[in-house]
Amino acid sequence: MTGFVSFIGSGPGDPELLTLKAVDRIKRADAILYDDLSAGPILSFARAGADLVGVGKRAGRPSPKQDHVSRLLVDYALAGGRIVRLKSGDGGLFGRLEEELVALRAHGIGFEIVPGIASPFAAAAAAGIPLTRRLTARRVQFVTGHDASGQLPPDLNLDALADPLACTVIFMGKRTFPALAEMLIARGLPPDTPAMLAESVGTPEARTRRTTVAALAADLAHGIGPKPALIFYGSLAQAEGLV
Amino acid sequence: MTGFVSFIGSGPGDPELLTLKAVDRIKRADAILYDDLSAGPILSFARAGADLVGVGKRAGRPSPKQDHVSRLLVDYALAGGRIVRLKSGDGGLFGRLEEELVALRAHGIGFEIVPGIASPFAAAAAAGIPLTRRLTARRVQFVTGHDASGQLPPDLNLDALADPLACTVIFMGKRTFPALAEMLIARGLPPDTPAMLAESVGTPEARTRRTTVAALAADLAHGIGPKPALIFYGSLAQAEGLV
Repeated sequence: MTGFVSFIGSGPGDPELLTLKAVDRIKRADAILYDDLSAGPILSFARAGADLVGVGKRAGRPSPKQDHVSRLLVDYALAGGRIVRLKSGDGGLFGRLEEELVALRAHGIGFEIVPGIASPFAAAAAAGIPLTRRLTARRVQFVTGHDASGQLPPDLNLDALADPLACTVIFMGKRTFPALAEMLIARGLPPDTPAMLAESVGTPEARTRRTTVAALAADLAHGIGPKPALIFYGSLAQAEGLV
Repeated sequence: MTGFVSFIGSGPGDPELLTLKAVDRIKRADAILYDDLSAGPILSFARAGADLVGVGKRAGRPSPKQDHVSRLLVDYALAGGRIVRLKSGDGGLFGRLEEELVALRAHGIGFEIVPGIASPFAAAAAAGIPLTRRLTARRVQFVTGHDASGQLPPDLNLDALADPLACTVIFMGKRTFPALAEMLIARGLPPDTPAMLAESVGTPEARTRRTTVAALAADLAHGIGPKPALIFYGSLAQAEGLV
């Protein structure tokens, strides 16, 4: 009998940020296909004997192609049982979820999607600030810093991104931020717009630094370091105790 | 001794979408100040004897003013013990979190923020679609449909909102959507841009309807009904089985 797939958003990495539903599904899974970022302590909820299969992409190393991941997921599901597809953060936010859904539908495989804590929410909480502010920052936007080729996406909406009254969060954008910041400043974003770099969100190494758009661009032009990061900028609330 | 406040994002209402950390803090709380939307089954995790204090705003009824809520929170914290401030969804997203943080800081009261599942993530998961798509919808934005006076916010970034390649989610926007849609279409958003109305997200009455921007605006101009809702539009993934 064909299996059933639960797509589980595992949050940013801290197992305490798993939902009750996620823990339930992980505990009952016969097989768990996980991304690297969501591994570690979260997998300790799996039952003994469950298949644990790492399929994540890791910066700087050869990694499984998305086609291969989708095919593997279909193969596990066709073999039967309860399959968990663990995705870091929320699987529907820059998680390549659609490709895997399409593959399952093509084979008539049933699934559910369990939302997870997306990393910007964890990063803002750790920094002690809200994402929105009542009178400014009534718009929040999440964007990726690169397209499939690793470059800045060609179809950026610069009017949307150069808005100092929004709270903008860039995923995977350290390398392209210097070029992006130059475009945004040319479009009218003040160089001293508040910015925040949140590295290794949801892990014990999490670190947050307050800065400005221009200063962050200058820093990142000198080197981006190995840690994954989110870049926040725009109308950010102040938080005491943060530099 | 002064108490400690845990701001807890309680998710959209389904207790299974609470995080482990949220459940832990709710179980140990001496007092819980909650919004109406986050009440119900979630409060059943509270220990016997905990003070349960409803401070939520309810559409169409007189509700506590934000100043009053902040003062009440400070009073509870100054009286000591573990205080939980429960906010539906993620407290940092359109949750008036900043005002309460400022009040606590003014009194030197310690706090933590625990992120929660924001309603767009729960709604997209229930509809079986991701928020982002790999080649389109590489930008997701959340906005409010009204300002403090109940009108469309005066400082809307129409270039950001009229973008058919983003996934836009409007909070509390049913009443103002007909006027907004007219402005967006005048700005170039195709009238047949896919849209989705997600009502009563995270509750047993949750319902999702696929439509278009123009058709949804026409519907809502005839009446908005009593249910809270999110409005999605833009590059939305298709989901089989949805009308």
